[in-house]
Amino acid sequence: MGFPKAVSLREVGPRDGFQMERDFIPTETKIEIVNSLAGAGIRLFEATSFVSPKAIPQLRDAADVVAGINRFKGLEVGALVPNVRGAENAARAGVDEMVLLVSASESHNRSNVNQTIEDSLNGFETVVKIASEARIALRCSMSVVFGCPFEGEVNPEKVTRVVRRMISLGINRISLCDTTGMATPPIVRRTCHFVMDKYPDLELSLHFHNTRGLGLVNVYEALNSGFNTFESSVAGLGGCPFAPGATGNVCTEDLVYLMDELGLETGINLDELIKIAKRVEEVVGRKLPGQVIKAGRRLDLHPLPNRVRN
Amino acid sequence: MGFPKAVSLREVGPRDGFQMERDFIPTETKIEIVNSLAGAGIRLFEATSFVSPKAIPQLRDAADVVAGINRFKGLEVGALVPNVRGAENAARAGVDEMVLLVSASESHNRSNVNQTIEDSLNGFETVVKIASEARIALRCSMSVVFGCPFEGEVNPEKVTRVVRRMISLGINRISLCDTTGMATPPIVRRTCHFVMDKYPDLELSLHFHNTRGLGLVNVYEALNSGFNTFESSVAGLGGCPFAPGATGNVCTEDLVYLMDELGLETGINLDELIKIAKRVEEVVGRKLPGQVIKAGRRLDLHPLPNRVRN
Repeated sequence: MGFPKAVSLREVGPRDGFQMERDFIPTETKIEIVNSLAGAGIRLFEATSFVSPKAIPQLRDAADVVAGINRFKGLEVGALVPNVRGAENAARAGVDEMVLLVSASESHNRSNVNQTIEDSLNGFETVVKIASEARIALRCSMSVVFGCPFEGEVNPEKVTRVVRRMISLGINRISLCDTTGMATPPIVRRTCHFVMDKYPDLELSLHFHNTRGLGLVNVYEALNSGFNTFESSVAGLGGCPFAPGATGNVCTEDLVYLMDELGLETGINLDELIKIAKRVEEVVGRKLPGQVIKAGRRLDLHPLPNRVRN
Repeated sequence: MGFPKAVSLREVGPRDGFQMERDFIPTETKIEIVNSLAGAGIRLFEATSFVSPKAIPQLRDAADVVAGINRFKGLEVGALVPNVRGAENAARAGVDEMVLLVSASESHNRSNVNQTIEDSLNGFETVVKIASEARIALRCSMSVVFGCPFEGEVNPEKVTRVVRRMISLGINRISLCDTTGMATPPIVRRTCHFVMDKYPDLELSLHFHNTRGLGLVNVYEALNSGFNTFESSVAGLGGCPFAPGATGNVCTEDLVYLMDELGLETGINLDELIKIAKRVEEVVGRKLPGQVIKAGRRLDLHPLPNRVRN
């Protein structure tokens, strides 16, 4: 099929990454990071989650974060809405996109949101109504599409079963998420083509984790199949609850570096991005998994040692 | 061209990885690790370097390491020989393969071995003689083939210039090394095909670093071009002198995991390999960059949380 010419990135660090941080990150810092990422050229964000402050205290400032983001044409501020109350709050806060979370596997859905997939899907109806009335876009973020940590292989039929319901709710933006890093190139090819062939009009995003080192390999495989929208996390923020110390989301700078090197347009300034990633490391107070933060770009050259020059 | 059916791996951790460790690793531990890796199915090793003990004290036990390795048919114990004295010592120690080091770029060669490429190449003649008389195989490990940290882009003509000289010395085993992780898929494709098209009879190995996160992406690209021999380092041992904290060699377990998932035969037992990688982390006393060590394989499943099961 061949590579796309341009690639869109959705930054999910402020949601998928920050939610795993124990120490509260000040609201103004969260806003600063989103605004600077937008300044570097990122246009799509999963900026926060309108979740219960008891469940994830880190994201209790969701409305304030959304209010602090400098809005301009082309920028899309998305936020997770786990339930009707979240949707009401997100609508009030003025998000551009509400994100509905559901798993492709029954056990992961139950583990994650404590209900069956069917109950999750039924619950979405009111959220869809709230979003429609407020003229807010909707996206479905589907977990464990490429493998479930409890069930193992996930049959692509399970994925399209959820996709079908989304379409019937009027939702055609769908993120296929590799929640615990179980995707491999053959699984990516099989699953993505299965979904795409059945539903060619979807706006699909792919969300890979690097938990087993294959995050960018899976992106590369997906590019080869013509996919052009990927989700990633600045500096590689995030992790995996099933694998302490393992990497989580694919790292945004590393992904942009790869796109740059492949000659694919992203509209994102990598130098700026690296600066922001270093700032994020400062904010969380530790080194993060991103590689390009440490090594710079390929052609950031080094001086010859003195003994050689003299 | 399509994937090869089987892939060979050369383990370089005991040389490329250990040489960067400050604290001396006991000789018996080095031997134990090589022997257990051989037990897990690895057949090709860059086991040590017959370098001056002053230059790299860590590898001062090269002869003892080689002597301690359980030899069997099919196992190839290679070692770096930086000079004539190294070659004499390696021959005496009974290695199966002597590895000659030269850079594709002039400045890297001068920085690395303090002489011009021409002087390096001329110096190889005596080493070749020693190896031939002892009936020991020879391989050239060529540095900075995909990019030089001092000069930037490396024209593939520079690579074939060295290859030509190797062939005239009777050497047709060549490792193309991405010494500081500057390779990208387009550079891999261009350089490898340039070399392969000019010299189709070479036994080429590819040696990638993950310094900028693209190690396995480059392997994947090379597989697509039909390459079937890769060098890697157990647990991701090693690093990059130009990028403190960055990853060095591609990690052996992560590479084997990818091969397994692609259905490519390696003859290597991944479970055993993961155990050895954990042992290597113990030996060096810190976490190493390998991902599969932390996360396990894709289908190493997790129990459902109690609240869901009950």
